[in-house]
Amino acid sequence: MNLNILVLPGDGIGTEVTREAVRVLQRVSEKYNHTLRLTDGLLGGIAIHKTGTPFPDETAKLAADADATLLGAVGLPEFDNAPPAQRPERGLLGIRKVLGVYANLRPVRTYKALIDSSPLKNERIEGTDMIIVRELTGGIYYGTPRGVEGSGDTERGTNTMTYTRAEIARIGRMAFHLARKRRKKVSSVDKSNVLETSQLWRKVMVEVSAEFPDVELEHVLVDNCAMQLVLNPTRFDVVVTENMFGDILSDEGAVLAGSIGMLPSASIGEQKPSGAWVGLYEPVHGSAPDIAGQNKANPLGAIGSVAAMLEYSFGLMEEATAVNNAIESVLNAGQVTADLKPKGTPLTTEQVGAAICAAI
Amino acid sequence: MNLNILVLPGDGIGTEVTREAVRVLQRVSEKYNHTLRLTDGLLGGIAIHKTGTPFPDETAKLAADADATLLGAVGLPEFDNAPPAQRPERGLLGIRKVLGVYANLRPVRTYKALIDSSPLKNERIEGTDMIIVRELTGGIYYGTPRGVEGSGDTERGTNTMTYTRAEIARIGRMAFHLARKRRKKVSSVDKSNVLETSQLWRKVMVEVSAEFPDVELEHVLVDNCAMQLVLNPTRFDVVVTENMFGDILSDEGAVLAGSIGMLPSASIGEQKPSGAWVGLYEPVHGSAPDIAGQNKANPLGAIGSVAAMLEYSFGLMEEATAVNNAIESVLNAGQVTADLKPKGTPLTTEQVGAAICAAI
Ligand SMILES: CC(C)[C@H](C(=O)O)[C@@H](O)C(=O)O
Ligand SMILES: CC(C)[C@H](C(=O)O)[C@@H](O)C(=O)O
Repeated sequence: MNLNILVLPGDGIGTEVTREAVRVLQRVSEKYNHTLRLTDGLLGGIAIHKTGTPFPDETAKLAADADATLLGAVGLPEFDNAPPAQRPERGLLGIRKVLGVYANLRPVRTYKALIDSSPLKNERIEGTDMIIVRELTGGIYYGTPRGVEGSGDTERGTNTMTYTRAEIARIGRMAFHLARKRRKKVSSVDKSNVLETSQLWRKVMVEVSAEFPDVELEHVLVDNCAMQLVLNPTRFDVVVTENMFGDILSDEGAVLAGSIGMLPSASIGEQKPSGAWVGLYEPVHGSAPDIAGQNKANPLGAIGSVAAMLEYSFGLMEEATAVNNAIESVLNAGQVTADLKPKGTPLTTEQVGAAICAAI
Repeated sequence: MNLNILVLPGDGIGTEVTREAVRVLQRVSEKYNHTLRLTDGLLGGIAIHKTGTPFPDETAKLAADADATLLGAVGLPEFDNAPPAQRPERGLLGIRKVLGVYANLRPVRTYKALIDSSPLKNERIEGTDMIIVRELTGGIYYGTPRGVEGSGDTERGTNTMTYTRAEIARIGRMAFHLARKRRKKVSSVDKSNVLETSQLWRKVMVEVSAEFPDVELEHVLVDNCAMQLVLNPTRFDVVVTENMFGDILSDEGAVLAGSIGMLPSASIGEQKPSGAWVGLYEPVHGSAPDIAGQNKANPLGAIGSVAAMLEYSFGLMEEATAVNNAIESVLNAGQVTADLKPKGTPLTTEQVGAAICAAI
């Protein structure tokens, strides 16, 4: 198969972890006889430095041409006080929107080797295996009117949370399709006791569920969900929610598993003429400028994102499983970076990448 | 002192836990020679049943006349599919707005007797002592335009998150004042890398912090905060945030401590001519219709809310401490309801109330 992939290393540790992820892609392509075509591009802080904007037109073009995009991380502390429109993060929001990757999938699962690193008591976290499906191209992230107006005591900031039935139905179907291949349960999260947007959300989820009579649907209020994730994470299979709630809940979910450095994320859109599904793949962790350039960042989140790309964009299940098994085996062998619990000296970013390639 | 208090038992277990909280108020008034004047009113589902509306005008009048209001819980499953405007919860939103209780204070602290019940590993939760200050009368809960319009694929739900400088400064000052009496650290939570509302929030927090040079201010993004609460709860002293984020984070925080049945909340407004501060006090837990009427709900959240009322509305620190000490002593003695870890047979709601009164 032709794997036509755009690589956007981005900022901070993004460069280092992406390098290892690319090595893994190369190893998989060799072993399974795929033709890998890699292109490099700019996004985030590095794009601001080199072109003056976090999401250059050139990157938008490259992304549109590629089957799938592998992203490192964006964000640099020097932009902390810049307005939203001039921040590295705006590059991320821009590429999500341009690619139309409306579904962000964030698996939360436990690895035996990491149970003791979970902040939760072992008996609470053991057996957790859920996927959080976050709507990614709508809601308060993109709604208008937005901005800050006026001055003095009445200076006012405004953002708009808004969803159409079509947007809700689309992400709902994605969640139900995923649940069908799993434990057949969808937990839809909203705040329908307060927000009208959530009332529409709930109504449409009920409508969509009629197309999936084999899948159970439950509704959970967002505040209750924030509690249940900690109290009882094993109760969830597929969790589906809007953009802002998903941002918060998926990060809460991310830390339960033991190390955020481990976690991949996949953002999926529509199918392309090439047959591949548009996708943007990135580790859940950020750019971690404090440890950038030290060859000690954990690349497993980026490498797991390669597995997700093989699965979701290309339907290459065997290859995806090979990568995931390699991750599990280096974890069990304790061949990991310092943020996990290495057996002996912690490995460098590069060494973990090499260990994964060797295990594939 | 005259304690002029409105009691709104509300729905479900609200009635039962409020009854015990009132007994504790009576015990404190006797012991410390205060004149207690209690009035009863309707709010929530019971108000819909008796008057057709969740927040009758009569209740608004009673609340305005009282120094402080003690609330049980609102919410009944039979209204689950009603639109927001016709739900018991609307009563709660209504009374918050009418009283102008803009600051919701939610302490999260650990009790030695409950450490093993925390979902977190003991070493993570031990020593946690924070207070989450949630803005309660603004933001997306109240913003307009709001509603659902259109039909078919373009049917659209909209809500508006909006804050003025004055609203942000007011809640900011509350947080800094509280921090001054504690460990002198304010963590302001926002999503300023995406939302303009949050940019204004952050700017105003920085301005307010200039009035409190002895208190440290840090900014935490809401998604990161959702992680840090679980990973590292002891790092927080005072957390301040807007209404929706506060709803989610304070419930996440609530479960860390071991039992949500334990936790009080205080919603505070301005000072009244009587000298008392307007306040609405309620346990964090909901109306729990599944166990209502069984005399087994944990009344300690409601009783803790009485302590909060004595402290915040009336400045009666000695009395508040007496109630809090009584809570700690029944916990240590294992004289608790079934949701905690009783020594021997679980106590009933009434028996816990009696044990607290005896301990005061
Ligand atoms: C960096 C930021 C804009 C982004 C978001 O809020 O979507 C991040 O938190 C994420 O979850 O991918
Ligand atoms: C019942 C509901 C309207 C309310 C809220 O969201 O404010 C509750 O969750 C709370 O936190 O007090």
